[in-house]
Amino acid sequence: MPFPSLSPEEAAALIHNGQTVGFSGFTPAGAAKAIPKAIAARARDEHNAGRPFQIGVITGASTGASLDGELALADAISFRTPYQSNQILRKRINEGKTRFFDMHLSGVSTAILNGSLGKVDYAVVEACDITADGEIVLTTSVGVSPTLCRVAEKVIIELNSYHPATLRGMHDIFEMPLPPNRREIPIYKASDRAGSPVIKVDPKKIVGIVHTHIPDETGEFVPASPVTDEIGRRVADFFASEIRAGRVPKEMLPVQSGVGNVANAVMAAMGNHPEIESFDMYSEVIQDSVIDLMDKGKIRFASGVSLSLAPATLKRVYSDLASYRDRLVLRPQDVSNNCEIVRRLGILAVNTALEIDLSGNVNSTHVLGKDIMNGIGGSGDFTRNGYLSVFVAPSVAKGGKISAIVPLATHIDHNEHSVQVVVTEHGVADMRGKTPHERAKLIIENCAHPDYRPMLRHYCNVLASDGHAPQSLRDAFAMHRHFLETGDMRGVHW
Amino acid sequence: MPFPSLSPEEAAALIHNGQTVGFSGFTPAGAAKAIPKAIAARARDEHNAGRPFQIGVITGASTGASLDGELALADAISFRTPYQSNQILRKRINEGKTRFFDMHLSGVSTAILNGSLGKVDYAVVEACDITADGEIVLTTSVGVSPTLCRVAEKVIIELNSYHPATLRGMHDIFEMPLPPNRREIPIYKASDRAGSPVIKVDPKKIVGIVHTHIPDETGEFVPASPVTDEIGRRVADFFASEIRAGRVPKEMLPVQSGVGNVANAVMAAMGNHPEIESFDMYSEVIQDSVIDLMDKGKIRFASGVSLSLAPATLKRVYSDLASYRDRLVLRPQDVSNNCEIVRRLGILAVNTALEIDLSGNVNSTHVLGKDIMNGIGGSGDFTRNGYLSVFVAPSVAKGGKISAIVPLATHIDHNEHSVQVVVTEHGVADMRGKTPHERAKLIIENCAHPDYRPMLRHYCNVLASDGHAPQSLRDAFAMHRHFLETGDMRGVHW
Repeated sequence: MPFPSLSPEEAAALIHNGQTVGFSGFTPAGAAKAIPKAIAARARDEHNAGRPFQIGVITGASTGASLDGELALADAISFRTPYQSNQILRKRINEGKTRFFDMHLSGVSTAILNGSLGKVDYAVVEACDITADGEIVLTTSVGVSPTLCRVAEKVIIELNSYHPATLRGMHDIFEMPLPPNRREIPIYKASDRAGSPVIKVDPKKIVGIVHTHIPDETGEFVPASPVTDEIGRRVADFFASEIRAGRVPKEMLPVQSGVGNVANAVMAAMGNHPEIESFDMYSEVIQDSVIDLMDKGKIRFASGVSLSLAPATLKRVYSDLASYRDRLVLRPQDVSNNCEIVRRLGILAVNTALEIDLSGNVNSTHVLGKDIMNGIGGSGDFTRNGYLSVFVAPSVAKGGKISAIVPLATHIDHNEHSVQVVVTEHGVADMRGKTPHERAKLIIENCAHPDYRPMLRHYCNVLASDGHAPQSLRDAFAMHRHFLETGDMRGVHW
Repeated sequence: MPFPSLSPEEAAALIHNGQTVGFSGFTPAGAAKAIPKAIAARARDEHNAGRPFQIGVITGASTGASLDGELALADAISFRTPYQSNQILRKRINEGKTRFFDMHLSGVSTAILNGSLGKVDYAVVEACDITADGEIVLTTSVGVSPTLCRVAEKVIIELNSYHPATLRGMHDIFEMPLPPNRREIPIYKASDRAGSPVIKVDPKKIVGIVHTHIPDETGEFVPASPVTDEIGRRVADFFASEIRAGRVPKEMLPVQSGVGNVANAVMAAMGNHPEIESFDMYSEVIQDSVIDLMDKGKIRFASGVSLSLAPATLKRVYSDLASYRDRLVLRPQDVSNNCEIVRRLGILAVNTALEIDLSGNVNSTHVLGKDIMNGIGGSGDFTRNGYLSVFVAPSVAKGGKISAIVPLATHIDHNEHSVQVVVTEHGVADMRGKTPHERAKLIIENCAHPDYRPMLRHYCNVLASDGHAPQSLRDAFAMHRHFLETGDMRGVHW
């Protein structure tokens, strides 16, 4: 192996204040771990010595505690994009202490390639194998690592022996040039492969290898609840009714599903539905429920960006890797989320909303319109171009004090033109072909929690009854303001 | 010719109350004219006789006075989609008297094909030629006419001798099946052709032909003003600076431009810019300014859905049709606006905003969040998937009483994740890689009218200074409410 072996500290010492580092990682899966932690330690040392030390951080999406957590804690991040889900980092962003740019995940590669995110000094990429001529086999995610390796001045590898080198073949690295040199992406079904199993890097750019043996910092599986089960059942019933109506073929269209326990419940319910025989996933994050449904033969094939599994589930996959490798592929996020493929395959997109308003607009990102939760992620990529775009949410949060159905969403990530179906544990609002006032009625009567229906009806029928869309500029946020004043949206005075 | 010749009244008599009719038309260009007018007369007669008569109306986009205007005036429309721009119809929609569903124009064909807009009984399509075996040559627009002809039970042709049969070859009819049977759309540059010059219809479905000689009901060219000229100059300067920075190639990327006098001014300025040599259009509506720039050699090729020209300009094109036909192509809107092509070609998208908020969200459709203006049209198709997405607007309207830059848009059609650049006559806000508070500052200082900068700064720095995004749930719409109370946004009390 022609590449020098480095300790994490030696690798961190190569990186200077003010530089931009692109790390592997899409969820904690496949994220760099040892080097970012060492960079955080270095930042603390520098800060203690009275010297500035901050870097720009670009990744595929969120990462684990050793990356976003440690770097945020050490105040070592000057700029962060495109997504995060770390508690410490989130707090700093919302306090205005760390600059964050929230991006559609399908657009990150283009922005890196054309330089609009600035120069990338280092790519720090986790791999399970690397050859002397610079062939890198990634681990549990692809993200934007191919692009980072392409544009970065220098590359450092975290060679993580926790992941077997036999992962080779799990990844499909298809890279797109900038326009005007783009051709079609030759993917016509979820299982098609269009690229290479490895990233190829000029070996001269690889400045060293840090050997590690660290599991992904993924969380444990979040269990379902009666509410998430009911949401799942309603989504599965809705798709079954679309099959019966002939709008979705019996062999199903590929499914995209968001992250978290609602998404897991939706997958489980689709797997259990007697009218849904089996289907493919063309999604972003492959969660535990997907592996379960593969084992049951309900999911035929899963395409994603990352394998974000609880440790025990990942072990199950690794123990029978040869079999799973034929039914799983990990792609760069600008391919997995690419509008061309999403439109062509006719994706059934199911994503989770923070809040949904009476016109069908969805807030995925900002609590009370101000504080970012995680970011838009890939939800816009799939929702905007999908064949059927569904948003799911429990009808209430905080023991009923917050309604997910509100007169007007305080931040709009997905608008009424792109959101077609809303599902809560109470029911389904199918908004296709409906006027805004008709949509409002459907959402109130089918999806809102019964406690909130009278006040939402009053808003819609009395306060905002005129015009094409229900909107009262005085009262649109009255429920939110009542919550801020009293801790409960109920009992709002209009 | 095996098809019976019908009078408009005979054709109208075939259509019954409660049916859905798909008409040709994308802007007034190529819209059916004689038959909808006769249907309106029929509706009036039926209503006078005390009988109900209303039809569902599907088109490509907006149409002319003989279609939306006459049918709305006669109260003959039960349901309208996907777009409109007619004063009479708009009033009825905003009064809640006509049901309207506002759609992304790229999605209309899919919705018609899969039945989610209901059954289409008749397609009424304007043509310049038709053969005995059912080959239809369209006139000045394509819209969704191929899909309407495919799904409609019956087809009636308005054979309009105002348009020469030698238009054959101007259209490129590429039809896409529903998933899972979709392949790539083989278009790699604006001038590529992928389909047929004609729509092919089973002759048995064609129930008759109405012969007409009626010009398109397009308006006259709206002249530029010093403000629109300045916006145009700033947009052209911005693209030139992107070329200098190497983010846009010197040979340019294809340009999409919205409709109206601001769009015309932008095109003119791009044509006059010394650093922009020449470029292609891959757009929706081809306006007069495009033809002017073709004549000057600045536009090499223009792809669109409709040729919406002032009568004199269309005459110019027809007088030298052989030459223009090699440099113009008209496509179905699900091809022209398809995300696959928009992303692949790397479109530079320039669209007009009604209002723009401090996070970069754009309202394209609803005045004060309630009353629809026209609809989202194709602006979302191009903005969401374009290489660079720019919104333009004069900084103020109504003599300064309304600011286009507001704390929060009252309806959000394009969100902060998809809008990259905002341009008014005062300057450019390039929001790539910027946090929400940085974006707000750029928009205020570079784009807002000076009269409004102090109050917007106060909102941003005092009322909504905390959190990731500037948002005060109490004051977000205070400027709009002050306008509703006083007729002027200035002098708002926070």
